[in-house]
Amino acid sequence: MSEKALSYLTENREQLLSKLNDFLSIPSVSTDSIHKKDINKAASFLETYLNDIGFDKVEQQDTGGHPLVYAEYNQAGPDAPTVLFYGHYDVQPVDPIDQWKSDPFKPEVRDGRLYARGSSDDKGQVFMHLAVFEAYMKTEGNLPLNVKVCIEGEEEIGSENLYRILHDKQDQFNADFAVISDSGMIAENQPTILYGLKGFTGIEINVTGPDHDMHSGMYGGAIRNPIMALNHILSSMKNEDEVVTVDGFYDGVEPLTDKERELIKQVQGEDYRSTAGVNETASEKGYTAKEHTMARPTFEINGMYGGYQGEGTKTIIPSSATAKITCRLVPGQDPDQVQQLLEEHVYNVAPSGVEVEVVKEKLSAKAYKVEPNNPLIEKAAKSYTKAFGKETVYVRMGGSIPVVEWIENIYKMPIVLLGFGTPDDRLHSPNESFPLDSFDKGMETLVHYWSEINKK
Amino acid sequence: MSEKALSYLTENREQLLSKLNDFLSIPSVSTDSIHKKDINKAASFLETYLNDIGFDKVEQQDTGGHPLVYAEYNQAGPDAPTVLFYGHYDVQPVDPIDQWKSDPFKPEVRDGRLYARGSSDDKGQVFMHLAVFEAYMKTEGNLPLNVKVCIEGEEEIGSENLYRILHDKQDQFNADFAVISDSGMIAENQPTILYGLKGFTGIEINVTGPDHDMHSGMYGGAIRNPIMALNHILSSMKNEDEVVTVDGFYDGVEPLTDKERELIKQVQGEDYRSTAGVNETASEKGYTAKEHTMARPTFEINGMYGGYQGEGTKTIIPSSATAKITCRLVPGQDPDQVQQLLEEHVYNVAPSGVEVEVVKEKLSAKAYKVEPNNPLIEKAAKSYTKAFGKETVYVRMGGSIPVVEWIENIYKMPIVLLGFGTPDDRLHSPNESFPLDSFDKGMETLVHYWSEINKK
Repeated sequence: MSEKALSYLTENREQLLSKLNDFLSIPSVSTDSIHKKDINKAASFLETYLNDIGFDKVEQQDTGGHPLVYAEYNQAGPDAPTVLFYGHYDVQPVDPIDQWKSDPFKPEVRDGRLYARGSSDDKGQVFMHLAVFEAYMKTEGNLPLNVKVCIEGEEEIGSENLYRILHDKQDQFNADFAVISDSGMIAENQPTILYGLKGFTGIEINVTGPDHDMHSGMYGGAIRNPIMALNHILSSMKNEDEVVTVDGFYDGVEPLTDKERELIKQVQGEDYRSTAGVNETASEKGYTAKEHTMARPTFEINGMYGGYQGEGTKTIIPSSATAKITCRLVPGQDPDQVQQLLEEHVYNVAPSGVEVEVVKEKLSAKAYKVEPNNPLIEKAAKSYTKAFGKETVYVRMGGSIPVVEWIENIYKMPIVLLGFGTPDDRLHSPNESFPLDSFDKGMETLVHYWSEINKK
Repeated sequence: MSEKALSYLTENREQLLSKLNDFLSIPSVSTDSIHKKDINKAASFLETYLNDIGFDKVEQQDTGGHPLVYAEYNQAGPDAPTVLFYGHYDVQPVDPIDQWKSDPFKPEVRDGRLYARGSSDDKGQVFMHLAVFEAYMKTEGNLPLNVKVCIEGEEEIGSENLYRILHDKQDQFNADFAVISDSGMIAENQPTILYGLKGFTGIEINVTGPDHDMHSGMYGGAIRNPIMALNHILSSMKNEDEVVTVDGFYDGVEPLTDKERELIKQVQGEDYRSTAGVNETASEKGYTAKEHTMARPTFEINGMYGGYQGEGTKTIIPSSATAKITCRLVPGQDPDQVQQLLEEHVYNVAPSGVEVEVVKEKLSAKAYKVEPNNPLIEKAAKSYTKAFGKETVYVRMGGSIPVVEWIENIYKMPIVLLGFGTPDDRLHSPNESFPLDSFDKGMETLVHYWSEINKK
């Protein structure tokens, strides 16, 4: 362990925070071409910082879209392991802007939290890694392992260019393992190893009835109502016990072992009812809310619309209705096959008198799971516990990170998900923030981890 | 029969159409306060016209909203019957304006049809009545019966003020029977007596889940999805056989007699499939589309929405979902009771984990039915046949006209629904039109009818 690196972080805390503020002040919103300059500014910020730290090779790679910042440190020698560090410098849009209590791009500390767009997702966490590399270089004169840095600018818009680059440049990006800090802990100050992520697939269902909205008095009783048709289709896909009733949906799903149920039970986690403001949770029959959320597949209607949405009444049979559905998958489920099952189900139950079309969501991902007793994971847990003074818990989460699946599929390397966010960070929402306590203890975790890693 | 009145209409056809165009050119849209001046202009147009015709008393009544145009003709003497003629001079909004092939307020004749907002609903039909009164006065010097004219400016926004006025001024509006021309024939050139209208009630269902949209990965499996909950509620209310499955919904519904089924079967009517552009009709099990549309109650979702409606995917559990439902009722059903049954059903089946609220639609109406062998109806049928040269058919229709129920309930007077519109008129839609053939033959029908009425 490097006491010197740790002291450096403590002594230079103000300067580092001020530098982080500079980074967060750049509105690097990737969805909107109006921010193209800001995207480039954020990439250049990283390029300069990596050069200042002393990386051997630093470059901005042309992706066809927003630049990818790449860097290498090779001086730990051929016997030391090489880590691929992935992060992203682009951020979500800030709408609705009027709900922010402070300017999303003027970072402000309130009650021990740093408020800014990107403070948690993912600029804040990216910065922590760079600061730790800086601390090692400035105090020890070297890093304890070889490092490849890959920080992209298109995570919030689907990482399509990254996917191609990871495929095409396998020599460049290959490493012994990968570390990603783009996730969170299950509670503030609760060290958390994320050892499983869900996969992802989706469909859109379009139901078309009459070729124009029709008078419900003149035609009610003669024409199939597309909204009602869609209701019948959708309610045949999941029942009130929150069980998906699409044939074959659960085929191949690894059963939850008693041991894993025990592991999930021990996780304190958040109170879903208070986070959501509801009286009761609702989960798959036979499973707790934590079990379902962490380790069972889900089926959600993300949006549905058809007909009149204004005030009062408009007595029509609408001409169409649409529903958007996404599923989160667990190990053993193949996204393409599940998508196929959903499509077949919809066509099988589609009533007469309307046209039903299924559009398959292009983006999909397999679930990811790593064994909790992998030594890379165990070392991460140990470092976490040392920094936070609390036992590390192991969790699987309902979210999906496509890049995790890609790195695993293409490189077959283990991936360590070292997240320092908290459930209150409000990612993608107004008033995103990150606890300064996570900033300090997270950097300490990384200092411990890098020195642990190279121990035989 | 007045040959002179008929000749007058033929000889003055161009002037009458030009005057109708002036009336249709006034954008008397009642929903939008920007058109308040136009509303007043349309009311003044009618006031002037009624004065010019020679009515004894003409006035604009202050309703608290848009003015009601009232007129009386009393010179037919105490032995002649008195008719209350009802119509409306306000029109629907014109959105979406870009779908109109010609300006909605610059009337244009194409292929024998007069295109303009209000040409069919209801300015065109109101004008026909006034033109016939003019023809009688200009040629015979009198009308064959006493007339009370009631033309309101708030039909398209619910006629709330009219309802109060009909209640409060019963002496003024009382008559021997009422005539309304705010409906249509079942096919172009097919004289149609409408002897039954459906009633009406409705509810809105609001389902509230989490207090903000939540990440479907982090919370899917823990939180009830309001859209899915609403799907389960709605699909429990009507099945795929188009049978309403709300307990008690059909209680009291008069069974369809063999004779009435025969009457409905004989109606040629429109081809619902081609009007709607669908492959198949969909109707209550055991009933044809015509039977269901004309004489069986209906349940329609007019609009439904919740969650994400944009392009692509947004992986959320939405915080709420809403559905708007209206029912058309038949004789024997009480709107308030049906509304109550709908509400109870929704609360009974509402799943846990979401809040469900039912908002009752304020406007409701009982179904209306008059005996087809009533002499007033028989005389209308005879006049129709004379003008159109074709046997008159008797139909019930799925639409609701609240004013019909009010006049019946308050005044207990028979109501004759003399509609001259056609199924292709596109009421409330872009490119509303009215066949000039209906204009000519409709006025001829009225000339015959007024002279028939006073025959003993």
